[in-house]
Amino acid sequence: MDGTREAPFSAEEFEARRQRVRELAVAEGLDALLVADPANIYYLTGYDAWSFYTPQLLFVPVDGDLRFFAREMDANGAHRTITQVPGDRIFGYPETYIHQVDVHPGDWIAESLRELGYGGALRVGYEGDAAFFTVRTYRSLVDGLPSWNLVESHNLVNWARLIKSDAEIAYMRQAGRICEIAMNTAFAGLRPGRPQNQVAADVMAAQARGEGDVDGDYASIVPMFPTGAGADTPHLTWADTPTPRGLPISVELAGAHRRYHAPLARTAIIGSPQPDLERLAGVTDEALEAALEVVREGSTSDDVARAFTAVLDRNGYSKNSRLGYSIGVGYPPDWGERTVSIREGDTTVLHTNMTFHLIAGMWLTGMGYEVSESIRVTPTGCETFSSIPHGLIRLDSGR
Amino acid sequence: MDGTREAPFSAEEFEARRQRVRELAVAEGLDALLVADPANIYYLTGYDAWSFYTPQLLFVPVDGDLRFFAREMDANGAHRTITQVPGDRIFGYPETYIHQVDVHPGDWIAESLRELGYGGALRVGYEGDAAFFTVRTYRSLVDGLPSWNLVESHNLVNWARLIKSDAEIAYMRQAGRICEIAMNTAFAGLRPGRPQNQVAADVMAAQARGEGDVDGDYASIVPMFPTGAGADTPHLTWADTPTPRGLPISVELAGAHRRYHAPLARTAIIGSPQPDLERLAGVTDEALEAALEVVREGSTSDDVARAFTAVLDRNGYSKNSRLGYSIGVGYPPDWGERTVSIREGDTTVLHTNMTFHLIAGMWLTGMGYEVSESIRVTPTGCETFSSIPHGLIRLDSGR
Repeated sequence: MDGTREAPFSAEEFEARRQRVRELAVAEGLDALLVADPANIYYLTGYDAWSFYTPQLLFVPVDGDLRFFAREMDANGAHRTITQVPGDRIFGYPETYIHQVDVHPGDWIAESLRELGYGGALRVGYEGDAAFFTVRTYRSLVDGLPSWNLVESHNLVNWARLIKSDAEIAYMRQAGRICEIAMNTAFAGLRPGRPQNQVAADVMAAQARGEGDVDGDYASIVPMFPTGAGADTPHLTWADTPTPRGLPISVELAGAHRRYHAPLARTAIIGSPQPDLERLAGVTDEALEAALEVVREGSTSDDVARAFTAVLDRNGYSKNSRLGYSIGVGYPPDWGERTVSIREGDTTVLHTNMTFHLIAGMWLTGMGYEVSESIRVTPTGCETFSSIPHGLIRLDSGR
Repeated sequence: MDGTREAPFSAEEFEARRQRVRELAVAEGLDALLVADPANIYYLTGYDAWSFYTPQLLFVPVDGDLRFFAREMDANGAHRTITQVPGDRIFGYPETYIHQVDVHPGDWIAESLRELGYGGALRVGYEGDAAFFTVRTYRSLVDGLPSWNLVESHNLVNWARLIKSDAEIAYMRQAGRICEIAMNTAFAGLRPGRPQNQVAADVMAAQARGEGDVDGDYASIVPMFPTGAGADTPHLTWADTPTPRGLPISVELAGAHRRYHAPLARTAIIGSPQPDLERLAGVTDEALEAALEVVREGSTSDDVARAFTAVLDRNGYSKNSRLGYSIGVGYPPDWGERTVSIREGDTTVLHTNMTFHLIAGMWLTGMGYEVSESIRVTPTGCETFSSIPHGLIRLDSGR
């Protein structure tokens, strides 16, 4: 009972990932990468802990060993999940660097890298849009490694994650099954007058419980329930708002297993929908299905988005926001990979084992409807990770 | 049913907060602040949504109106919670700025600020250690507002949050009550062989459910269960690890209400503890109680830490990490305020209605013990937000 976890992937798979990332880095003319996004650190090393609220960095030279820097208390036990970095390459900065005005963990990391012989004129890529690579860390590195040329790596590791291995797909299928259970739990919990937070309680439990041997992991976004006119606030979190009758309630949530996510959105209603909602739902479902028809190896993101938009256009609707995004490993605050967006103008060619969340969120004045699928691209089409019918989910009006 | 929320605080309270923040900014010689930390945005405006995974910024000039910048889909409905910024001062950047290589929301925000007349030679404070103020946003502002002198604000708004109002304390008491229920739920759920994720499911549900009229909000950190020798990995999240007999299981979780948090840690055991664990528990409890004895208006953070350390020293133990930190509003990934640390050398004088999480986490080789209290400083001592006895929690060995 020492907390040591079985590695989520084989050593060979991890090594292949690092190889691919190093090749991409070399192609960009980089000598090394600084990786701060917890999803990228997990992808390359297996490290998995809620320690990203203090600075942590994985240093990936194109030649040479990985080094991992974290707060001392986290570095001490990191070996229990970081299966791919030996203990003597894990460095813990002292507690005295936490939340101080005059010193910062980034100073300590810069000094350590100098001591390790990495203080020279290197071209080093950093993750400019990673949530947990703060400006103070960045500036500490700029000041502490003055010979470095620090350049934006433009999500290089995220891009390396785009095509999944079979082992990753297996986790996403399990996440999809958990997602299905969580969605059905939400439907069962929506009863007129019942506060949203009670429904959220049911969902959060179902997400963590999982099913049988498949343990649920925490989802990197909490379940959300955009409702009625308030559906134009898609990222409003729950409150004690009572479940209404006769208004659309969108449910957006994910199943997660070993940090892999399968998100899903459906829209439910108790009682009878207004005709304009029924029409919106019908058109949106048709548009999503048209988009799914186009998904296959060799199609482009743009093709998929256009198939969706064509159905909306024909019916007099429009959607400003993108139709989808790449998914896989997720940590708060997001389960998207921040690489491919499914939208017009994105010319990414789809390959087998790319995985996306296609989400048709239609937020009109006074009403909203959402329907989505988490999918895997296949040679001839796509596989959906969950199995919940499309269409407005009519909950028993006798509730 | 339009999702509009009752403001969490009176307009007067919000106005007083902004006044205080502006005074602090003036004292620092700043013309304006850029606020990105969702806890700070909520504190100043009431805005509350899971939208922080794309860039958002609150611009606070020392003279003049607040402006809020967010993704268009979030800006549209922001008025449902942002009670303190009129709709015409909320700006949504277009969807085309999301996840692109060549443009960034920060560019759009910089241009908007120039158009609003803020392009001149201003001294503007930014939050260098805020998780969601990314390096790309920072660099967009540096490039797009070349006349600005951008300076680190060193958590200025976080510091303004240090002393709570009575209304905030009322929320924290409710969070403390939810915390108590969640902790007792964890104890009830710990049965030999039961996987951690099942216990987590019970806890997550209890946290969201709350009690009676008091709805639970999502906690900004998931519950954690450092166990046995693995307790030296304090931020390991749950897996399907079975609940053991005879080993200490620490439970660290929070209750949350309207984004205010009351965290708590306790250590439970099923069956009989080893004598060295009993001794560690006894000393740690005594040390925490000695520290709590010293808490009152006028004591310093250093005094409290020394009272704790004295007991450890006398008994041959030591603790590297700080004893506690300021708490209040929290968003993922943290429920701490990143201001005062309760540790030796921190000379902050305690005032009534400061609130802290004092956490005695003792992680020794092969074993760990944690006990904590979330507290409010009072003129003569302290109030604890939850009521759970100290000491190793002996769960029925007949389970």
